[in-house]
Amino acid sequence: MKNRYLAIRQYSEKICAPLQKEDYVVQPVSDVSPPKWHLAHTTWFWEEFILSKYSPEYKRFHPRYSFLFNSYYDSVGERVLRLHRGNMSRPTVDEILAYRSYVDEHMTSFLSAASDTITPLVELGLHHEQQHQELLYTDIKYILGHNPLFPPYDENFKETSFIESDSTFAAIAGGIYTIGHHTSGFSFDNEHGVHAIQLPSFYIRKSLVTNEEYIAFINDGGYKNPLYWHSDGWAWVNEHKIDSPLYWYKHDGAWHRYALSGFEKVNPAEPVTHVSFYEAAAFAEWSGMRLPTEFEWEAACDAFQWRQRWEHTNSAYLPYPGYTKPPGAVGEYNGKFMINQMVLRGASVATPADHSRKTYRNFFHPQLRWQFNGIRLCKK
Amino acid sequence: MKNRYLAIRQYSEKICAPLQKEDYVVQPVSDVSPPKWHLAHTTWFWEEFILSKYSPEYKRFHPRYSFLFNSYYDSVGERVLRLHRGNMSRPTVDEILAYRSYVDEHMTSFLSAASDTITPLVELGLHHEQQHQELLYTDIKYILGHNPLFPPYDENFKETSFIESDSTFAAIAGGIYTIGHHTSGFSFDNEHGVHAIQLPSFYIRKSLVTNEEYIAFINDGGYKNPLYWHSDGWAWVNEHKIDSPLYWYKHDGAWHRYALSGFEKVNPAEPVTHVSFYEAAAFAEWSGMRLPTEFEWEAACDAFQWRQRWEHTNSAYLPYPGYTKPPGAVGEYNGKFMINQMVLRGASVATPADHSRKTYRNFFHPQLRWQFNGIRLCKK
Amino acid sequence: MKNRYLAIRQYSEKICAPLQKEDYVVQPVSDVSPPKWHLAHTTWFWEEFILSKYSPEYKRFHPRYSFLFNSYYDSVGERVLRLHRGNMSRPTVDEILAYRSYVDEHMTSFLSAASDTITPLVELGLHHEQQHQELLYTDIKYILGHNPLFPPYDENFKETSFIESDSTFAAIAGGIYTIGHHTSGFSFDNEHGVHAIQLPSFYIRKSLVTNEEYIAFINDGGYKNPLYWHSDGWAWVNEHKIDSPLYWYKHDGAWHRYALSGFEKVNPAEPVTHVSFYEAAAFAEWSGMRLPTEFEWEAACDAFQWRQRWEHTNSAYLPYPGYTKPPGAVGEYNGKFMINQMVLRGASVATPADHSRKTYRNFFHPQLRWQFNGIRLCKK
Amino acid sequence: MKNRYLAIRQYSEKICAPLQKEDYVVQPVSDVSPPKWHLAHTTWFWEEFILSKYSPEYKRFHPRYSFLFNSYYDSVGERVLRLHRGNMSRPTVDEILAYRSYVDEHMTSFLSAASDTITPLVELGLHHEQQHQELLYTDIKYILGHNPLFPPYDENFKETSFIESDSTFAAIAGGIYTIGHHTSGFSFDNEHGVHAIQLPSFYIRKSLVTNEEYIAFINDGGYKNPLYWHSDGWAWVNEHKIDSPLYWYKHDGAWHRYALSGFEKVNPAEPVTHVSFYEAAAFAEWSGMRLPTEFEWEAACDAFQWRQRWEHTNSAYLPYPGYTKPPGAVGEYNGKFMINQMVLRGASVATPADHSRKTYRNFFHPQLRWQFNGIRLCKK
Repeated sequence: MKNRYLAIRQYSEKICAPLQKEDYVVQPVSDVSPPKWHLAHTTWFWEEFILSKYSPEYKRFHPRYSFLFNSYYDSVGERVLRLHRGNMSRPTVDEILAYRSYVDEHMTSFLSAASDTITPLVELGLHHEQQHQELLYTDIKYILGHNPLFPPYDENFKETSFIESDSTFAAIAGGIYTIGHHTSGFSFDNEHGVHAIQLPSFYIRKSLVTNEEYIAFINDGGYKNPLYWHSDGWAWVNEHKIDSPLYWYKHDGAWHRYALSGFEKVNPAEPVTHVSFYEAAAFAEWSGMRLPTEFEWEAACDAFQWRQRWEHTNSAYLPYPGYTKPPGAVGEYNGKFMINQMVLRGASVATPADHSRKTYRNFFHPQLRWQFNGIRLCKK
Repeated sequence: MKNRYLAIRQYSEKICAPLQKEDYVVQPVSDVSPPKWHLAHTTWFWEEFILSKYSPEYKRFHPRYSFLFNSYYDSVGERVLRLHRGNMSRPTVDEILAYRSYVDEHMTSFLSAASDTITPLVELGLHHEQQHQELLYTDIKYILGHNPLFPPYDENFKETSFIESDSTFAAIAGGIYTIGHHTSGFSFDNEHGVHAIQLPSFYIRKSLVTNEEYIAFINDGGYKNPLYWHSDGWAWVNEHKIDSPLYWYKHDGAWHRYALSGFEKVNPAEPVTHVSFYEAAAFAEWSGMRLPTEFEWEAACDAFQWRQRWEHTNSAYLPYPGYTKPPGAVGEYNGKFMINQMVLRGASVATPADHSRKTYRNFFHPQLRWQFNGIRLCKK
Repeated sequence: MKNRYLAIRQYSEKICAPLQKEDYVVQPVSDVSPPKWHLAHTTWFWEEFILSKYSPEYKRFHPRYSFLFNSYYDSVGERVLRLHRGNMSRPTVDEILAYRSYVDEHMTSFLSAASDTITPLVELGLHHEQQHQELLYTDIKYILGHNPLFPPYDENFKETSFIESDSTFAAIAGGIYTIGHHTSGFSFDNEHGVHAIQLPSFYIRKSLVTNEEYIAFINDGGYKNPLYWHSDGWAWVNEHKIDSPLYWYKHDGAWHRYALSGFEKVNPAEPVTHVSFYEAAAFAEWSGMRLPTEFEWEAACDAFQWRQRWEHTNSAYLPYPGYTKPPGAVGEYNGKFMINQMVLRGASVATPADHSRKTYRNFFHPQLRWQFNGIRLCKK
Repeated sequence: MKNRYLAIRQYSEKICAPLQKEDYVVQPVSDVSPPKWHLAHTTWFWEEFILSKYSPEYKRFHPRYSFLFNSYYDSVGERVLRLHRGNMSRPTVDEILAYRSYVDEHMTSFLSAASDTITPLVELGLHHEQQHQELLYTDIKYILGHNPLFPPYDENFKETSFIESDSTFAAIAGGIYTIGHHTSGFSFDNEHGVHAIQLPSFYIRKSLVTNEEYIAFINDGGYKNPLYWHSDGWAWVNEHKIDSPLYWYKHDGAWHRYALSGFEKVNPAEPVTHVSFYEAAAFAEWSGMRLPTEFEWEAACDAFQWRQRWEHTNSAYLPYPGYTKPPGAVGEYNGKFMINQMVLRGASVATPADHSRKTYRNFFHPQLRWQFNGIRLCKK
């Protein structure tokens, strides 16, 4: 466990290695956090929920950090409002790296002697840090991709690991399916509450929607016709003058995009990404098909390859039967978000290798686009 | 059908009878429409979807009304933005009543000779008008209840038709339940797609949460403790400084409220009303219970009396399996709202008598409170 | 004085005679008040500052009206926020007219026996009512002119009483000029503090800028070139997408406008109106000239005819030397507005006949356009 | 001139020496710019207005910097919106320092051979850089003073250079005074247009209002009584819940403040600072006195010491008689700001030593507080 702890902790810092000090600080929109905030907040988790509770002699690194790096845990105390994170030039990156070293040192001692009863909380902390690793990638992309100079993050970063060649549909038989995490290994509380679901038969496409297909939707007036859109989606398109995926720019008559490897022409064969739920649903409507529910996705996911994009579903993020929040502040982890968000299934190129499973329920508000998400179509 | 048409049309005007001309005009918030707008918009439905399409010699009453009284039917043409409705002093109430007479006259001729193929569209128009009748009550309440003089609408109006005495829980057996409209009679497209649902056994309370119980929640700091609230709900409470249901005022140490019968002391025994989904969910969390899903509600509703309040459920408003939008502008009726809204089940004191059924799916954004809604608890 | 009182009071109601009940209620933007609010607020002035103070047996018409119809007199008590006035359907127009009758009856008795010491306050009340008469015209125009049906107010209303034929410049000699009200008759406190000003010689145009000249500015890209604009004005143009005066619409290739007499083609020979200070200043910059200061205007105004438009000046609304606020709530009348506003001089077609004088200082925020204002050019 | 150029350029970098890289990046509010933006923008001035125009072989350091570091010069080209400056992590501080070196190198060569005709533009550039040096101090203070850790900028920085002991009033005789820059040496165009002003006699206080006096205003309910405030000021106080100067915090019952030297108790004897025009005017009203006009200030300023605070005046920032903008982009320097702003006179502890004179006209919107401003009282 100690080795896994250290490996995961080091990976967070490795993600940030290509950054300049200045890149760690900014927060262009409220959903994007400064990279140094992620590095500090994940460290705060260990200090707050493990060291300060279970390690009697532990002295906190700094008396104000609990206030500064708390995120949504309202019951732990006041917190710095999310939209002010980007105004905090201090603590500096070096101070936060020192904070990380200090906590890592104490955690490694602690883990050497820790009893098994603490293991579930350590596991939660590790998965929490992995969730922020994915956010580090997407937040860094937002920061560099909104800079007028479009600096590459890493010229060798591949946002698409393979081109899908099979765009046929898999036929999924109707019947009773078991939904939820029912094997061994870690899972979040939102995956518990295993239950049976009756599904009619349906077809699901083996490949994700490509950039080429999405450009056809644009060219066919997809962003101009209210009949394809949800009412709230249509209001969003018009208020924000949306006419293409996030990071796309029309330049010399051709679509270009910012990728973590730099500014480049859109490759028609790659799966489209950085589209909101609203756009995914409108695209599906335009194509005469629909998005799968999260239950259909879970029932069907062995029939296709799925680790390139978080896949929009037409399911709201709601509790499974019998869901109850764990007691205390850790109980705020998932349940409080079960309103106004839609479920995405699968994993993306930015998801840490051992942080995905069929039953994983990711969730975002329907207008958000900065994750590596994508569109899988369903019919009948 | 002609008689039913006239009866329903006259009821819209009867609801408005106690109003002064000035009351017909104002729009205090975007979700509330001026009463004269409702009277005109329901009339526009008949002109737009029936007379102008199926009655060849019909001449529109006024060339601009189609533009003015369109609501959300984006595909029909431009429309007056919802938040500007309250700035339109013209057409006057008298002009709109003349518009109603004109259309009613043509509709009665038309219905005398109409073929059966038109019946479903007429039925839709009648149910559409009944939906706006409920909105007339709630919008009038909002307009008068936000006037510093608190003028009564009708001193004899009863917002609670009976006091519930049985607060025990009904036990509902687990099993397979059929969900959706599967009997004869009118229903909206969002109730179609009958499907089976597997439900675990659960308990549901026979009576709604009362004002007395809700005051206990307030007094116990319910609006002050983030642990009871969804994250978005907590942000809403704090941004809008919510501390009690809509229309409630603490006056001389006691809770008072505006009702359609006037300003009065809160009656502890009546079912609480005018609470948002956020408040309903927080109350349920505080009470150690939960809200039912819309499927549980439909499975259980024969076990209790349910026509006093629209009952919050923990289900998002999403399509049933196999849902497809009808073609054309009428297709915008329901499907485009299937995002960001929660389902309410049942009916309220403001619902027209023949406009309710077990499978009816009402829906609102989770922060809205101006409907006659209420809270039914569920457990295990 | 009693006759003058009644004449002025009746004129307020005469202005409203062409309105429908519904027109009295709406408030499309915060600067525009509903006509019934003007009728009530001017009545409140008499009740609050005269009857309730100097008429011992006077009983207020309604206990809540003091709260409802107070405007900016913060020291008198709480008040209904300006932007909620348009949500108040009650009291009705008829109730407000009854309020006016009641107060008029008591005022006429009171004035029959009033001592001379009260005369200045009565004078202030009469001029206050006349100020609201001008606002009644401009607010009614805003309400009807923003209605998609463009209903005329009065087809015989002339917004321009004469066409100016002499567009030459008057030469005004440099020298010492006396500024401020120094003759007999009523004046506001902001005109007091008579003082000498040294002015260089300058030229001022005898006629106002016409619609034809203003169209030349538009056609020359006046709204597109930042060099003509103040920085705040340029931001305002871009944020609100301003491209022509208020009430102007391009229709079939020609400029049209809403006037109190109805929708009509813009007459090139009339003086332009409904332009903000920002637009007036940009026009002057484009024409290679400038706006006069309020002192230049006062020194020069015998050289031209000036009762058609309030004329923008390049003077900020600030106190004259030695200005002090009268004690008490009446002291709030003028001084509290002496920031962020620019002075307009002259009078307009909507100004009551005996409510203008050379030294009158009108004032508005620089972005406002709904008054009958205009542009007079000055040079060297 | 070359030496002066280098001395001024180096001073900009010296001001930033105590900063961490992270401090250079953030922009907590739109009026505050990131320090690295100031370092780049001042450099851009030399490149844009001198090197690229008058040095034929000069090659720009980077093709995009003209776009990035333009500020308000709308006629030069598009520009990065002011409120996005703080989202730009690139170019980095090191890249901007390289840009400075590159431009300085070319400027020193250029200045060695420059003709006298260029001198006025170079002078303007030097004074422009000095203006940004003062902004560097105040923006750095805002950034560090809004960080929850309150890091000191420089523990030895003195915000008050001397305590004033003489709080009597100087009597200034009435008469004709000459206003505007009429001696040799540099001045901005807004000081030109020398003209005579007739002033009545008045009294002006020799010392600035102290913290002790300002606390008395607070304790007497100064922020609670609308009668002391302008209407717009009262709205500002209530909307932003203002109850003390910027950077003040009540801690353990005593007023503390953030200063560039760190968090400390408020010293009662020091002149109050960081108050808006609204607060200065309300304080003056409360004290039964008033603020001087800018003309009174200029006439009286030999009678007191005045280099500690920018002193609020009751004069709007408007052109002097005969003012005309210089042609071209440099013409945007001053004239476009002559609306909605009030004049401050004097200089502050943050003003570069040779960058002040009696006729200097500084100007800010009336709600702004982040400059080192102060209050001087006047009477009769």
